[in-house]
Amino acid sequence: MSQTDYERIFHPRRVAVAGVSAEGFGYGRAIFLSLLAMNFSGELIPVNPRGGEIRGHRIYRRIEEIPGDIDFAVIAVAAAHVPETLEQCIGKGAAGAEIISSGFRELGTPEGIALESAVIAVARRGIRVIGPNCFGIYCPKSGLTMLPGPDLSREGGPVAFISQSGGMAIDFAFMGPWMGVRFSKMVSFGNGADLRETELLDYFRSDPETEIIALYVEGVADGGDFLRALRAAAAVKPVIVYKGGLSEAGQRAVTSHTASLGGSRVIWEAALHQAGAIQVHSLEEMAQACLAFSLLPPRPYRGIAVSGGGGALGVAACDMAEAYGLTLPRLEGEIYEAVLACLPKPGSSAANPIDIANPYVPPSVIREAMLHAARDPRVDIQIQAPLLYHFKALSAITGGAPFPAITPYAELAAVTREVADVSGKPVVTVLPNPRRGLGDMDVEEVLRKARRAFLTAGVPVFDSLAEAMRAIRHVAASAGPWLID
Amino acid sequence: MSQTDYERIFHPRRVAVAGVSAEGFGYGRAIFLSLLAMNFSGELIPVNPRGGEIRGHRIYRRIEEIPGDIDFAVIAVAAAHVPETLEQCIGKGAAGAEIISSGFRELGTPEGIALESAVIAVARRGIRVIGPNCFGIYCPKSGLTMLPGPDLSREGGPVAFISQSGGMAIDFAFMGPWMGVRFSKMVSFGNGADLRETELLDYFRSDPETEIIALYVEGVADGGDFLRALRAAAAVKPVIVYKGGLSEAGQRAVTSHTASLGGSRVIWEAALHQAGAIQVHSLEEMAQACLAFSLLPPRPYRGIAVSGGGGALGVAACDMAEAYGLTLPRLEGEIYEAVLACLPKPGSSAANPIDIANPYVPPSVIREAMLHAARDPRVDIQIQAPLLYHFKALSAITGGAPFPAITPYAELAAVTREVADVSGKPVVTVLPNPRRGLGDMDVEEVLRKARRAFLTAGVPVFDSLAEAMRAIRHVAASAGPWLID
Repeated sequence: MSQTDYERIFHPRRVAVAGVSAEGFGYGRAIFLSLLAMNFSGELIPVNPRGGEIRGHRIYRRIEEIPGDIDFAVIAVAAAHVPETLEQCIGKGAAGAEIISSGFRELGTPEGIALESAVIAVARRGIRVIGPNCFGIYCPKSGLTMLPGPDLSREGGPVAFISQSGGMAIDFAFMGPWMGVRFSKMVSFGNGADLRETELLDYFRSDPETEIIALYVEGVADGGDFLRALRAAAAVKPVIVYKGGLSEAGQRAVTSHTASLGGSRVIWEAALHQAGAIQVHSLEEMAQACLAFSLLPPRPYRGIAVSGGGGALGVAACDMAEAYGLTLPRLEGEIYEAVLACLPKPGSSAANPIDIANPYVPPSVIREAMLHAARDPRVDIQIQAPLLYHFKALSAITGGAPFPAITPYAELAAVTREVADVSGKPVVTVLPNPRRGLGDMDVEEVLRKARRAFLTAGVPVFDSLAEAMRAIRHVAASAGPWLID
Repeated sequence: MSQTDYERIFHPRRVAVAGVSAEGFGYGRAIFLSLLAMNFSGELIPVNPRGGEIRGHRIYRRIEEIPGDIDFAVIAVAAAHVPETLEQCIGKGAAGAEIISSGFRELGTPEGIALESAVIAVARRGIRVIGPNCFGIYCPKSGLTMLPGPDLSREGGPVAFISQSGGMAIDFAFMGPWMGVRFSKMVSFGNGADLRETELLDYFRSDPETEIIALYVEGVADGGDFLRALRAAAAVKPVIVYKGGLSEAGQRAVTSHTASLGGSRVIWEAALHQAGAIQVHSLEEMAQACLAFSLLPPRPYRGIAVSGGGGALGVAACDMAEAYGLTLPRLEGEIYEAVLACLPKPGSSAANPIDIANPYVPPSVIREAMLHAARDPRVDIQIQAPLLYHFKALSAITGGAPFPAITPYAELAAVTREVADVSGKPVVTVLPNPRRGLGDMDVEEVLRKARRAFLTAGVPVFDSLAEAMRAIRHVAASAGPWLID
């Protein structure tokens, strides 16, 4: 069995795509066109027994007919033809192949199980296999992309994602760019006949491009070895784990999805905790934790100052802080007076939560209030929640400049960055949006531009206070050598 | 003390707005312009000691100078002038007044407390007061609107919202139309110096326009009387309660927000439960519960069939169902075979969750699969989760018709309606959207159109499976005479 050559798998120079039809709409054709659309950096060689041509590329009839060696193959042929196709990849010196096709062990039929055994047998003779029943590899740097991904980001970053689910992987790939999460590599391994969670954890532990590891897993091949790999990885990098199928019915769904064995909720939760992993319970929570680890200095945050419009938001902030093991230190004395002096009166409150009575106060006021709040030594981090959607009503009432022009998100982004830099305490922004009708597409656009402005300034953005606090908590509660303080 | 004339408060013919300046941007001017923009159905009379004119309306210097009686007043003058202004409203025969101004008991100062006492004293002489420190009344039918609401919906519906928080009220008013929640009346009562939660509960219990009551409360004036009113209301209509400030810090924030007394988490939760109210923990959850009660036949739902794209979605569905006390009955035998026969192969699963391997299957296929699933007597309700955003990749890969044109949301809306009607078991739709970047505004627009199409067909829509299940659970777990079965 060959040494795994991950470089040739993630950054292949020559890639065969098996199962590319010249016409119609099949998975092989879709992924080939997606790789073209992504401007994949290497050479793409389509393969199909019927031959033909696609976008100026000659379609070879067999992998064997390709002149010279290949590094990697994408296999999207019918399940029955997968073992022989894989065999041909070995003949062409490929380091690895991803098998997009389904129809294997996940069917639960003798035929499916036998086909998967055949795949494993071929893999053991000298090629690493991703899949079958998966969406394959996404690597922003090389341009390898997953099945329904002709337009994923080519910008790389610190987060690696290992996913037993293809749907979860493509959704996270879509979410990354607008959320502010950038990826080193993503691997959807599906049935995991060969390469899967444990070996990939070992790889990403040492991958210099990866600083944060995210993992969606439904079941593992070898519990003991998985926990060994998890512990080793979590000792050097934050490892965020979403275990699907913790419920009884979920376990049943796991069986028909990726044919893996699960285990009880209690055992899993204890094991993940002991291994030092950070457990999350949804893709959204995982993505938000990745964002927090990407942009926040890793510290054991406890005290939060929350400023924003609306007293109820402040009340909710307190209720949530308690749920997430955080506190809102009550501002007092000189600091309290200094914050209060900045705020519009009456209607504001400076006790923390800092309730700014008027959503239209200029960013300079928010800047002053936050700089004062940061002086309290019990405040470790600040959350700012501007209610930008209210500027639409302001514009409508005054009949003045249009709403996008008067919404000061660029200034607010600069202010939050400045407050974080000057105070040495990070700032997180929350951008809620209750206006999501068809008549409010302009609100959506302004909020998306605002999000981009904050992210460009290195300030993490969340949709809600609860999500922001939960993500901060994940960073604060993580215990590894990356933690400062 | 006068009998409360709610008809003259919610549907006033003549309304004085005190504190309307001819120029600039003050609250009084803002609400006056908002009322104009809403096409308020009655007569609006602006008042300001400086006189002048606004949009062709003469500004009276004093309420006393207005010829004839008024029904209602909106008061947005400085706190110190509120008592005398209110006094003048009595002189003009007003049934009620809302006081937008802040600077009262919520300040915690002797002056603020004294001013609020003065307001109460005037109110006792014959006028009902909403506020102070509130956003007032929103009534779609009459066109009364809240402070920052020049563009709220004029379409009425079954939900009444009583809110101690103005921000919460305006946010819910913004959310209603696109979520599918329509309001009979909404009252933001702020400090609640006079009219507040208990009396309003009594009113909405008997209001024929109100079928569902939602309540955001931070603290109550008289615990015993409140619980009496809550129990009475919850005995005839679903009453959904969001109690803010259940945490210790939250209680502190409550004090500076609406100056009300809270109480411990345990006491509140037990009391709400015993009174038959439905407790929620965020505005979003409250709105989603209102949607479910608005569109779902009230039944004790337990068994759910979930169909959609993605095995991981199915796994998550099971995990969530367990958390919300619901089940996904495993489809078996003839029904299982019939569902399986509809689905694309390989890759699909018919066991429930019904994993439809290909997101591009025609709606007619989904229709067939759902009709078969509904035949299982253990299935009470169905959730359909189409991954419509994947049509964008399809359009990009095939280079064919543009994405909005090929996304079959209208057909899907018709199909879900038909399945619900034919089977007698309701269908709920989930429309997730992981593509929220600036380059994906088209995805947002398609999803909003899809949401509207489903809602027009009477099918409730949620952003996520978890939210859908939580809302279904609220209906299922409610226990009142409205429950069928």
